Amino acid sequence: MSEKAFQEYYPDQLSHCYGCGRLNENGLHIQSYWDREESVCRFQPKPYHIAIPGYVYGGLIASLIDCHCTGTAAAASYRAEGRAMGTEPALRFVTASLHVDYLRPTPLGVPIEVRASVKEIKGRKVAMAATLSADGVVCARGEVVAVRMPEHLVTE
Amino acid sequence: MSEKAFQEYYPDQLSHCYGCGRLNENGLHIQSYWDREESVCRFQPKPYHIAIPGYVYGGLIASLIDCHCTGTAAAASYRAEGRAMGTEPALRFVTASLHVDYLRPTPLGVPIEVRASVKEIKGRKVAMAATLSADGVVCARGEVVAVRMPEHLVTE
Repeated sequence: MSEKAFQEYYPDQLSHCYGCGRLNENGLHIQSYWDREESVCRFQPKPYHIAIPGYVYGGLIASLIDCHCTGTAAAASYRAEGRAMGTEPALRFVTASLHVDYLRPTPLGVPIEVRASVKEIKGRKVAMAATLSADGVVCARGEVVAVRMPEHLVTE
Repeated sequence: MSEKAFQEYYPDQLSHCYGCGRLNENGLHIQSYWDREESVCRFQPKPYHIAIPGYVYGGLIASLIDCHCTGTAAAASYRAEGRAMGTEPALRFVTASLHVDYLRPTPLGVPIEVRASVKEIKGRKVAMAATLSADGVVCARGEVVAVRMPEHLVTE
C-alpha cells in the first residue's frame, strides 16, 4: 500500500466531505490506498454505528463503499493519465449511482475492509466493483459509477 | 400523515439503529409516516453532512432512503396483514439491496423529503421505489428491497 491516502491529495476546498474529508471534524475520515491493482480501505466502526445489536449499520456500509470508490476513481484516473496524484488539474469524482447488495449481517466490533477494482474508465465516468468484508468474510458487494466533477467545482 | 412515526413502534431491542433508532443518542433519528399510499420522511441535514461545499453528502442520502424504506416495508406489511402497527409479532425489516441514482447535487441547508411507494410484497420481501427531493426538486432516486427479519432476531 502507498503511504499517503488518496483523500489526503484532495484540494482543501474538496476535503470537507462527511465520509472522507480530512477537514470535516465530525466526519468518518475514510481513507483509501492502492494494493497492487485493487484499492483498499480499512475502517473501524464506532459502537454507535449499529443496525441491530451486534451488527453494522447498512448506511455506514453504503457510505464506506461510496467514498472509497470515488477516491479510487480519482486515483485510477491519475494512473490512467500517467500523472502523480495531487498534480493539477485536480481530479475529483462524485457518485452517479451506488448499488449495494447486503449478503449477510456485518458484525460490529471488528475492522471492516473495503476493496474496489476498476471495471471501466470511459470519458469522465469510472465504473467500479467493491466488496466489504469483516473478519475476512464478504458481507456486502457494491457497484459504483463515479463521474468526474466539472472543473469549475474543483477550482473554485 | 399519521401522528406517530413508523420507527416509534419498533420494539426497544430493535431501536438502536444509527439511522432510525430512537434509542441511539448519536443517530440520525429518521422518522417515516404515511401520506395516503406513499410514505414520507422529512429530514434536516446538519451543516457537517456535507459532500462538497453547498451540497449534501451522498452517504446520508443513501442512509435516508435505506431507513425510510425499511420502515415503509414494516408499515406496509402491517397494512397488508390488516394489523395495527406495533402489534405482536413485531414486523421489522433489513435491507437486502439498495440502489441510488444521484440525479443532481442535493443542496445543503434546506429540508429534505424522501417519498417511497411499495412496488411489491412477495413472501418476506418488500420492493420499494423512492425519491429524494430538496425544495421540491427530485435530486436522487432509490430502489430498495427489504427482507423481513428472522423471528429470533426480533424477539430476542
